[in-house]
Amino acid sequence: MSMNSFGHLFRVTTWGESHGPALGATVDGCPPNVPLDETMLQQWLDKRRPGQNKNMTQRNEPDEVKILSGVFEGKTTGTPIQLMIENTDQRSKDYGDIVNTFRPGHADITYYQKYGNRDYRGGGRSSARETAARVAAGGIAREAIKLLAPDLEVKGYMVAMGELDIDRSNFDWDAIDKNDFWIPDANAVQQWEDYLQGLRKEHDSVGAVVEVVARGVPAGIGAPIYAKLDTELASAMMSINAVKGVEIGEGMNAARLKGSENADEIFRGNDGAPVYSSNHAGGILGGISTGQDVVVRFAVKPTSSILTPRASIRKDGSPAEVITKGRHDPCVGIRAVPVGEAMMACVILDQLLLHRGQIGENQGTIG
Amino acid sequence: MSMNSFGHLFRVTTWGESHGPALGATVDGCPPNVPLDETMLQQWLDKRRPGQNKNMTQRNEPDEVKILSGVFEGKTTGTPIQLMIENTDQRSKDYGDIVNTFRPGHADITYYQKYGNRDYRGGGRSSARETAARVAAGGIAREAIKLLAPDLEVKGYMVAMGELDIDRSNFDWDAIDKNDFWIPDANAVQQWEDYLQGLRKEHDSVGAVVEVVARGVPAGIGAPIYAKLDTELASAMMSINAVKGVEIGEGMNAARLKGSENADEIFRGNDGAPVYSSNHAGGILGGISTGQDVVVRFAVKPTSSILTPRASIRKDGSPAEVITKGRHDPCVGIRAVPVGEAMMACVILDQLLLHRGQIGENQGTIG
Amino acid sequence: MSMNSFGHLFRVTTWGESHGPALGATVDGCPPNVPLDETMLQQWLDKRRPGQNKNMTQRNEPDEVKILSGVFEGKTTGTPIQLMIENTDQRSKDYGDIVNTFRPGHADITYYQKYGNRDYRGGGRSSARETAARVAAGGIAREAIKLLAPDLEVKGYMVAMGELDIDRSNFDWDAIDKNDFWIPDANAVQQWEDYLQGLRKEHDSVGAVVEVVARGVPAGIGAPIYAKLDTELASAMMSINAVKGVEIGEGMNAARLKGSENADEIFRGNDGAPVYSSNHAGGILGGISTGQDVVVRFAVKPTSSILTPRASIRKDGSPAEVITKGRHDPCVGIRAVPVGEAMMACVILDQLLLHRGQIGENQGTIG
Amino acid sequence: MSMNSFGHLFRVTTWGESHGPALGATVDGCPPNVPLDETMLQQWLDKRRPGQNKNMTQRNEPDEVKILSGVFEGKTTGTPIQLMIENTDQRSKDYGDIVNTFRPGHADITYYQKYGNRDYRGGGRSSARETAARVAAGGIAREAIKLLAPDLEVKGYMVAMGELDIDRSNFDWDAIDKNDFWIPDANAVQQWEDYLQGLRKEHDSVGAVVEVVARGVPAGIGAPIYAKLDTELASAMMSINAVKGVEIGEGMNAARLKGSENADEIFRGNDGAPVYSSNHAGGILGGISTGQDVVVRFAVKPTSSILTPRASIRKDGSPAEVITKGRHDPCVGIRAVPVGEAMMACVILDQLLLHRGQIGENQGTIG
Repeated sequence: MSMNSFGHLFRVTTWGESHGPALGATVDGCPPNVPLDETMLQQWLDKRRPGQNKNMTQRNEPDEVKILSGVFEGKTTGTPIQLMIENTDQRSKDYGDIVNTFRPGHADITYYQKYGNRDYRGGGRSSARETAARVAAGGIAREAIKLLAPDLEVKGYMVAMGELDIDRSNFDWDAIDKNDFWIPDANAVQQWEDYLQGLRKEHDSVGAVVEVVARGVPAGIGAPIYAKLDTELASAMMSINAVKGVEIGEGMNAARLKGSENADEIFRGNDGAPVYSSNHAGGILGGISTGQDVVVRFAVKPTSSILTPRASIRKDGSPAEVITKGRHDPCVGIRAVPVGEAMMACVILDQLLLHRGQIGENQGTIG
Repeated sequence: MSMNSFGHLFRVTTWGESHGPALGATVDGCPPNVPLDETMLQQWLDKRRPGQNKNMTQRNEPDEVKILSGVFEGKTTGTPIQLMIENTDQRSKDYGDIVNTFRPGHADITYYQKYGNRDYRGGGRSSARETAARVAAGGIAREAIKLLAPDLEVKGYMVAMGELDIDRSNFDWDAIDKNDFWIPDANAVQQWEDYLQGLRKEHDSVGAVVEVVARGVPAGIGAPIYAKLDTELASAMMSINAVKGVEIGEGMNAARLKGSENADEIFRGNDGAPVYSSNHAGGILGGISTGQDVVVRFAVKPTSSILTPRASIRKDGSPAEVITKGRHDPCVGIRAVPVGEAMMACVILDQLLLHRGQIGENQGTIG
Repeated sequence: MSMNSFGHLFRVTTWGESHGPALGATVDGCPPNVPLDETMLQQWLDKRRPGQNKNMTQRNEPDEVKILSGVFEGKTTGTPIQLMIENTDQRSKDYGDIVNTFRPGHADITYYQKYGNRDYRGGGRSSARETAARVAAGGIAREAIKLLAPDLEVKGYMVAMGELDIDRSNFDWDAIDKNDFWIPDANAVQQWEDYLQGLRKEHDSVGAVVEVVARGVPAGIGAPIYAKLDTELASAMMSINAVKGVEIGEGMNAARLKGSENADEIFRGNDGAPVYSSNHAGGILGGISTGQDVVVRFAVKPTSSILTPRASIRKDGSPAEVITKGRHDPCVGIRAVPVGEAMMACVILDQLLLHRGQIGENQGTIG
Repeated sequence: MSMNSFGHLFRVTTWGESHGPALGATVDGCPPNVPLDETMLQQWLDKRRPGQNKNMTQRNEPDEVKILSGVFEGKTTGTPIQLMIENTDQRSKDYGDIVNTFRPGHADITYYQKYGNRDYRGGGRSSARETAARVAAGGIAREAIKLLAPDLEVKGYMVAMGELDIDRSNFDWDAIDKNDFWIPDANAVQQWEDYLQGLRKEHDSVGAVVEVVARGVPAGIGAPIYAKLDTELASAMMSINAVKGVEIGEGMNAARLKGSENADEIFRGNDGAPVYSSNHAGGILGGISTGQDVVVRFAVKPTSSILTPRASIRKDGSPAEVITKGRHDPCVGIRAVPVGEAMMACVILDQLLLHRGQIGENQGTIG
């Protein structure tokens, strides 16, 4: 299906399977003259990479990215940037019964029903390994954003995992990068770790909620009606493996509010620009940025690969019991944090470029 | 912005403002030879039309749709179908202070910041009136689906409004079309009505959750990686005015579940096709339909136009207090039901066509 | 087929059949704040309109365009502009044998083979009447270009018709708008008219070559590799009814030249900008504008509707002899001139917007 | 620019520069279960490869293609196919004055003016080396077509070079693959070779016309109005480096014909299907295939890299005289033959898939 691309002017096409020779991203539409090298991208891949701590799968994937095109003398040229990550661990092995058995909660069965074939090697194209390519592409977006909107910052973190929630009154932006869960509260880390290790010992897994924020997005970004900023973010986040829900600002809870509670009142700021009393809207009105923080959250379902047996069938319809051995993340939400950040960065850059192309400059001034 | 279209092969472009001469939809890619006339579309527009009962705004918009092209001798020809709905109530009136004041919670301010102009007549392009065009286009999608998947049914209903939730143990599919709230429980209607009329008297409004289900979707529909069925639905629903969250199947609650709870186990059905023990997945795995019900929910924020005063500013930055007089729905969620259905129908048809084009037929057989 | 749109950021979708209620164009992506009203578009439609002189068909189509959306208080808002031209002459009439007979050289047979239906009313969607919508859309593009590149001018004219060619040594830019053939040589008009009236009396028709030039296109416009300026122009012109060939600059004759003859040598102009010794390239190198005149030519085949009998078949396969009565242009190339201009204007505007979005500004300075 | 893709459902994105680490194509939308391996693609790359005979440049580029994704157990899976061709000859060398000098007839100057940077290594992205990726992608299209339309054949050949034309009365389909010029006349080969070697000795180059034919295309393929089969072919061929004109069927000569000469008359064939008296239309009416041979021609300008000095300027505006040393094809038209074939194959496959998706089957039967 020719549906492996996202973005309008900054357009990313990912390719590759979890156990093929390589995977990567073809990034078309990056502005020219953006300083870029592989180390700028590698930092984000390292954040997503498995095996870094005991809360992640212990598989060893170096995820080393190579730039094959589109960069010359340390800067982007404006031509397509090809990113390649070789799969180092492609040794043939005995996949046993999994070759013909559909793992519950995985896309094994639907890919087979759709395409009439089965890449049984670790999920093939439907593997979350595909998100490594997104993270690399997101790294390019971050560098390009620096030229277009230098104060813009994108940051993701976990806000819930199973029965745990962060305490927003302790929210600490600086703590996020200093713990394995990317949570904004150093004091909660031990509790989160104990909870997850408990689940692991029970041979179980758990879901999570990730929040991604973009600070410093200029007012006026977003392309109504069907490429609204929130619409694009919903699409971007829902396309991530295992995501089952996406929220902007108040999110699903908006259903519970009265109009008098939900409206963000508007005032004149000291510099003349509008300021808001609150941010129920998540920084977006009518699909266009307000200048406030753009806030998106998404829920990741619990890892389907668990050691607890589950009923399934084989290609021939015969019943099978599936226990997924191997080393799997007990909570894929952790590794979804850099993926969500990458998608946010790509969407924001794309919208910045679209706005520049079609509007030229933010024309409506207030005050 | 050239972003007023959605869909890939069944492509809908809406146009028009709430108080211009007309609005409508250009529908490109409808298969040929689908029986179609205006009455088939009008039934869905009538469902969305305001002024039908006391829970809706009492404005009078006949919303009569005309087909200007693409249909000959009672059937679609395969060429673009132009749908036009004339705005009958365009009388010039005194918009007063609203011409220069930004209504909180509305897109007035961001449209102005983006485009540098202000269509103050009822929100212009950002008005929910635009959804009338979607509903008409969705009517075309429904007729085309009948030829491609005759057993496929799309139905929407409300499941929550403010502090009220439906009782799923009383779920009655047949009750939905028989009450003003489109709720699946005849016994709850009076309670919902009392609650909403109470809010209206308080000069307030409230949010809601709408659920839309597609039954009879064949397994194998959906276009990974970035046009997954759930991704397309997230985008479609988030593009509806006032929507702040979208869920597939278990939705945000998936974050709270363990892997052992969330996996839908698979069994062999009597006809050989797979059956599932549950539908946490909402009928979608890896972005592809499983053959189960496809289930999407979305949250609509409370109507921002309320009689309770709210602080805002004018174009010149001066402070203003906004009370939105006029006749507004106290809960726009009600009218979002047919809009959600229309978007579901459009997405499903588009994916059916994409699948046929790229795969030809569902090739993987089980059992 | 959802293929009734062209352009990337300035995106035009035409709709309508020759004998339906109306036809028009949905124009998405026009920049905001462009002064626009219907008279600005009507001038171009009047240029294309039939019945204006004896070298055209004498049918009477007023082709009055209405703007239904996207313009407020005399300026574009940035939202979709809907253009509608009502077909005033829709009276039912007896189409006779043509209902089941395929006219040679027309799309009757292929539309039937593709879509499985037949709109026998004047060609339906395949009628050249569709180009009226393009001309109206091109009028919008011209107005938007005025803001982006005030010195840019687009002009089309005929350069050949049957055995006649213009004499380039007499080329007179100002003569073009003053004769019925849009030829750049007032002295040749009588000869062209005599030639065409002779063919008409012979119940025959003839082909033509139209050249369209854009002057004042800034260097750097064009989007390699597959949306090069020349590629976009080739696509735009070939999509016009009856066009069988497209040339840029030297065109097909480039095959006959040596490298030493074809290279346009480069010098430094008085203002520092490059100047070229010649323009074999037609103003485009590597798909990007050089700053010279952008020159495209296209050949239009002779009108297929002639009074001379031609052999064909009916739907049931039986033989038929077709004489196309009715009033048809003996050379459709004349009316193709404003259509070619409109396509040029649309392509240029689209590329100006793309360049602004992705590059920001023309960054490479010389001298 | 995110404009490095072509095709709708069969979508090819090429990437890479002439002297970067690698170049290739990301092919999205290939149907699943098409038998495919690298040798199937290599045969076409070998046809395009330089250095094969004395009429080509003597550079040594092995052009070995690797498949990095999308193929499993010898068949396509339906996921993106990544093709990579490593550039073996990347040694750094002294580019001398060319680093700052613009070669006349090349895209050096316009790429610099557009992007603000200069990849002086052999033209970078604007090098014809990019067409190697197209040829590889075209090889995939050919294999997929075999499953969809087994009798369909695509063949290209030269029909003119400088002052030479083929003699159509000697047309020999089988001769094409047996000579270095891909001309359909074994007896003319010596003359063509003498002519070209003469030009080479004069330090000059020459243009050419290539014709590509698709036989066995089913009637009904093509997507009016703006993705007509001829429109898509015009775009595809014009995007090839150095192409300045594209013709369908009668081409530019259609301007010289009368309607009575140009119309292809229609008769009933022995099997009931329509047969035509001639093929002025080039197998396309109204943008849709008739079932006849689809015939496209394109003109390639003479190689701009010649040993004869030409005037130009440097970045700083100073005058320079350019002699392009190095080994260049005296007629790039020869190597354009397999490129034109590849583009034809890609367009035809794309249109076959589009037709299947939107129409389902060819529904209009005749006779």
